Amino acid sequence: MPETTGPLDPPPGGLLVLPVPGIGEVRPGDDLAGRILACADLRSADVLVVTQKVVSKAEGRLVPIDPEDPAARRRLAEAEAVRVLRRRGDLVITETRHGFVCANSGVDLSNVPAGTAALLPEDPDRSARRLRDQIRARTGLAVGVIISDTFGRTWRRGVTDVAIGCAGVAAVVDLRGQPDATGRTLVATEVCLADELAGAAELVMGKAAGVAAAIVRGVSPDWLRSSSVRAEVVRPPAEDLFR
Amino acid sequence: MPETTGPLDPPPGGLLVLPVPGIGEVRPGDDLAGRILACADLRSADVLVVTQKVVSKAEGRLVPIDPEDPAARRRLAEAEAVRVLRRRGDLVITETRHGFVCANSGVDLSNVPAGTAALLPEDPDRSARRLRDQIRARTGLAVGVIISDTFGRTWRRGVTDVAIGCAGVAAVVDLRGQPDATGRTLVATEVCLADELAGAAELVMGKAAGVAAAIVRGVSPDWLRSSSVRAEVVRPPAEDLFR
Repeated sequence: MPETTGPLDPPPGGLLVLPVPGIGEVRPGDDLAGRILACADLRSADVLVVTQKVVSKAEGRLVPIDPEDPAARRRLAEAEAVRVLRRRGDLVITETRHGFVCANSGVDLSNVPAGTAALLPEDPDRSARRLRDQIRARTGLAVGVIISDTFGRTWRRGVTDVAIGCAGVAAVVDLRGQPDATGRTLVATEVCLADELAGAAELVMGKAAGVAAAIVRGVSPDWLRSSSVRAEVVRPPAEDLFR
Repeated sequence: MPETTGPLDPPPGGLLVLPVPGIGEVRPGDDLAGRILACADLRSADVLVVTQKVVSKAEGRLVPIDPEDPAARRRLAEAEAVRVLRRRGDLVITETRHGFVCANSGVDLSNVPAGTAALLPEDPDRSARRLRDQIRARTGLAVGVIISDTFGRTWRRGVTDVAIGCAGVAAVVDLRGQPDATGRTLVATEVCLADELAGAAELVMGKAAGVAAAIVRGVSPDWLRSSSVRAEVVRPPAEDLFR
């Protein structure tokens, strides 16, 4: 433990969650890593959480959509889906090519240029790896990267931010087999760290408008490893009791 | 903004998440508020997140269970449920009296005395209100309180901590109708703040063994208001596409 800690050092055993303001409007082809590095005072072992919207924009995942046609998003969502699980009016709950089950295949009309819709990144784990690699190449810093998006949930009102891609930080931490405090064995405690980190980041992004990234500082060094949302979080349909 | 900030002050726009270690083993009838206050350096406007396990123990929600009988938990879970949604072997996904849909009605065998099981608090919102009131009465501090538990999710592997009760902090923040950065209107952005706060707290509790509470410091003052998980988060079956 250092003798003195400053306000940007995590307290012992604790975490700091810091917004990254100032990234500004992102356009197709923009150097997103450069934009983030210009605004974020990153340190090694930080986890950088970046919202899907700016990743999709930088990657050019914008498509034209007729703003006058209320069914246009639904058709786009169906085209992005491998399966439609539920319909209610123009809302569809779909399974995307990535394996995510979410509303409207993640097709988003807010905070995008009028007459366009943002699609999810083609491979959000790859997007996270690319950001991580670019940050390492330019600064020498090894950070974890999470791409977050806002999903609804069954049985509970309100949306939360979850991880749709990650690199350099565990998506799921397996505490299976570690003894509990009474010495008996935990049966199943695979914690989806990446979703909790995405949600924590959303808390600071939700405090101000237009903040598209955040830093979580102070994560356990054990959690910083190679990983993937696709491999660790997406539940295969055969395992799933609700599909 | 203060001229100088210490390591236990949240940075501008950010959050601090602090573990509360040292609460120790909790037994039925224990003064949980007193135990927490002895270990936590609380400030007004903090959000205190307390795990269900210690709340259930303090409230005496422990029942005997035959540790040799693999079906004992399932039977207990069924007795605690108003409805069984799915079965897989001795795992049941149930709807509890509170309206939560979760594995085994939240009946928990880990970190409880051998031969006992912990049930969920009878009314976790009331448990949160009681803790908040006791903390205010003893210290004058107005804090938000969240009771958290560990739930699985559909479609995504790994568990996360969510709120089962709250007091003095918004469960769901309604951003509906606030214009997005392009000036258009957001359609539905009701964020389940309480679940994101519970997940953020879990991140610091998961870093060390035996930590049953955490503090989130720096939340937006707008979020500190009267609330209830039951009223704001539990989704009525009629609204639900998956039940």
